[in-house]
Amino acid sequence: MPHFRFELIHQSKKSRARVGRIHTPHGIIETPNFVAVGTNGTPKALDTITTAALDLQLMFCNTYHLLLQPGPEIISQAGGLHKFMNWHRPLITDSGGFQVFSLAQGTVSDELKSRGQKSYSGSVLKITEEGVLFRSYRNGDQILLTPESSIQTQKALGADIIIPLDELPAYSISPSQLRRSLDRTHRWERRSLDEHRKDIRKQAMYAVIHGGVNPELRKLSCEYLTSLPFDGFAIGGSLGKNHAEMFEMLNLMMPYLPNDKPNHLLGIGDLKSVERCLELGIDTMDSSHPTRCARHGLAFTATGGIKILQSTSRTNFNPIDPTCHCFTCQNYQVAYLHHLLKASELTAYTLLTIHNIHFMVQLFSHYRSQIRLDFL
Amino acid sequence: MPHFRFELIHQSKKSRARVGRIHTPHGIIETPNFVAVGTNGTPKALDTITTAALDLQLMFCNTYHLLLQPGPEIISQAGGLHKFMNWHRPLITDSGGFQVFSLAQGTVSDELKSRGQKSYSGSVLKITEEGVLFRSYRNGDQILLTPESSIQTQKALGADIIIPLDELPAYSISPSQLRRSLDRTHRWERRSLDEHRKDIRKQAMYAVIHGGVNPELRKLSCEYLTSLPFDGFAIGGSLGKNHAEMFEMLNLMMPYLPNDKPNHLLGIGDLKSVERCLELGIDTMDSSHPTRCARHGLAFTATGGIKILQSTSRTNFNPIDPTCHCFTCQNYQVAYLHHLLKASELTAYTLLTIHNIHFMVQLFSHYRSQIRLDFL
Repeated sequence: MPHFRFELIHQSKKSRARVGRIHTPHGIIETPNFVAVGTNGTPKALDTITTAALDLQLMFCNTYHLLLQPGPEIISQAGGLHKFMNWHRPLITDSGGFQVFSLAQGTVSDELKSRGQKSYSGSVLKITEEGVLFRSYRNGDQILLTPESSIQTQKALGADIIIPLDELPAYSISPSQLRRSLDRTHRWERRSLDEHRKDIRKQAMYAVIHGGVNPELRKLSCEYLTSLPFDGFAIGGSLGKNHAEMFEMLNLMMPYLPNDKPNHLLGIGDLKSVERCLELGIDTMDSSHPTRCARHGLAFTATGGIKILQSTSRTNFNPIDPTCHCFTCQNYQVAYLHHLLKASELTAYTLLTIHNIHFMVQLFSHYRSQIRLDFL
Repeated sequence: MPHFRFELIHQSKKSRARVGRIHTPHGIIETPNFVAVGTNGTPKALDTITTAALDLQLMFCNTYHLLLQPGPEIISQAGGLHKFMNWHRPLITDSGGFQVFSLAQGTVSDELKSRGQKSYSGSVLKITEEGVLFRSYRNGDQILLTPESSIQTQKALGADIIIPLDELPAYSISPSQLRRSLDRTHRWERRSLDEHRKDIRKQAMYAVIHGGVNPELRKLSCEYLTSLPFDGFAIGGSLGKNHAEMFEMLNLMMPYLPNDKPNHLLGIGDLKSVERCLELGIDTMDSSHPTRCARHGLAFTATGGIKILQSTSRTNFNPIDPTCHCFTCQNYQVAYLHHLLKASELTAYTLLTIHNIHFMVQLFSHYRSQIRLDFL
C-alpha cells in the first residue's frame, strides 16, 4: 500500500461535491473535512489531547512560526512534530512562505485601502530567484527561506502533508508582475518537489495553485502543476475581494484539478463559505476563523451564532445550543460564559474554542452525509 | 445530622497537626487540605469540571469580584454559585472586605517601602461604623459594603462556608489605631453573625481572627470570637513581614482556638509555608500562589520546581515530573511546555495550572498520611 492515497467514496449527482478518505501514515482523514489551525503546535487555548477527543482529523501547523521557535532541530530531537505535540493524527505544514509574505504585506483589505501604494515592508528584505530573505520577528536574525530549506525544515517537522514554497503576490499587482510571480512560484514549487523526492519519508506533497484573480493564469497554474507528480493540490493566493469572486474563481478552477487526488483550500473556513466550497468540490479547508471567533466571544450555532458578550447573554441560563454534545454545552450556561468573558478569564476562551471546533467537525460530518445522499 | 460539622480523626503525637473531615452540604473536605482560588467563579486558566477531576475539595471565590460582576442577582437567578459554576463540591466565599481594603492599600511590602506614609487611596471612599464605601473598578459606582450587605450577598451566592465583614488594618498603623480597628472588626463580625443567623440556609460561618502583629490583640481576638457561635475560625490580617514572624504568631494563637472546630489560614499557600503551618494545626489554607506560579512558568516539584522558561528546559524531553500522574505530565514534555510558553500560547497556562493544582492536592494528601502516622 502506498503511504498516502485518496479514496473517492461518493461523487454527488447534484454538484461537484464528493465524499472521500485520505489515507496517511497517521490515519484517515474523512473528506470533506475541516482543518483546525495549530500555528505553534497547538490550537490556540486548547491542548492536543482535548482536540483529538473532539475528533478533529487534520491539524495545520505553520512552518514559519515553528522554524523561528522552537526551531526544527528541537522538534527533530523530540522525535518529530507529532511526538512533540503529542498529536498522533494527520498533520499538514505549510512552506513558511505565506507568513513571510503576508506578514510583510498585511491583508487584502489593508492593501485595497492603500490602493496598491504599499510595498513590502519590514520583515521581507529581498526576494531573488534563490528564495526570500527575511528578518526574524523573534530575534532580528536574517533568514533565507528557499524551496530547499523550506522542504528540509518540513522534513524535520515530519507532517503527513507538506507544501512547496510559493511566492504570495500582492492582490493589486499588475498582470505582467502577476505572471512573473506565477512563473517564479512554479519554478520554486518544482524545486520543492525535487527536494522532497530525494527523501520522501512517507510524506505527501500538495502543490499550491496560484494565478491570483486572473482566470487564465489560474488555468495555466492548474495545468502546469497537475502535470507534475504532486500528491494533491492546494489552492492559494488571492481568489478575489469577496465571497462571490472567490466562488466564481473556484468554479472555474476546480474542473482543472484531477478527480483522483485530494485538494485543499488554504485559509478559508468561515461559515458563509463552507457549503458553497464543498459544492464546488473542495475536500479540506483550514481556517483560524472558528478559534479566533471563539476568543472574541462568538459561539457558532446552526442559526449563525451567539455573541456571548451581548447583554441578552447576561441572563441566558441555557447552554449555547441545547442540542450540542460538546463539553462546554454539556456543562456550562451562556450566562456563565458571558461572565467569564467579561472578567477576561482565560477559561472562557478555552470553553468557546471547544464549542466552535466541535461545531465545525460536526458540520463537516453533516455535509458528508448530505453529499452521500446527493442532497448537496 | 447538622448541615456542617468537623470530625477530628487523628491528632498527631508529634505536633499540633491533625487530620479531620469537614462535612458540608456539598460533601466532605478532608483536612488538612489546599484550597484553590477561583476569584471569578473558576480557577484561572482552568474549568471547574477539570478542577473537580483533580480532586480539589474546596474552592475559594471572592465576593468582591462576584458582587461587581456578574452581581448576586444573576447568580441567584442561576440557582446559586454552585450551579452557576457547575461546581458541586464545597465552596467558601469571603466578605468582600479584604479586596476593598487591600486593593486600596497595596501589599505589605508596598506599605513597608512607603514607610507608613501611604493612606487609603483610590477605591475606598469612606470607612464608618456602618461599613465601607468604595468605588467599583468596573463602572465607577459607589457601593456601601456593610456587615449586613456582605452577608446578604453571600446568601445569594450560597457558598457552604461564608466569612463575616472585617476591616483589614494597614500593616504599619499605630497600636492604638490597631486596637480601634480590631474593636470595629469585632463589632462588624458580630453584626455579620447576627445577620447570618436570621436565615442560616445550611451555610457555615467562620470568624476572622485579627489583631495584626500584636500578640495581645491576637489573643484578645481569639478569646472574643471563640465566645460567639461561629462554625469555624479563619486567620486573617497581617501576621508579620516574613515566614518566621508568621510562624511565631501562629504558634502563639493556635492554642486559643477550639479543637472541635475547623480553622482556615487566609491567603497563605506558598510551598515554604505549608509544612510548618500544618504542624501548627492549620486545617485548610487558600492561595492563588500555585496557579499564579503556573502562569509565570514555575512548575512545582518535590525538589522545589522547574522554571519552564529557563534555557535548559528547551531540550528537556521529559515530563515535569516522571512520577507525576497529572494530565500534563502524562502527555507533555518540558520542551513542549517551554515552547508553548515562549510562544505565549494560553494552552501552556492551562497545562501548568493543572500540574500545580494536582501537585498541591497530592501534597496535602501526603501530609494527611504523614500526620496519621505521627510523622508530622
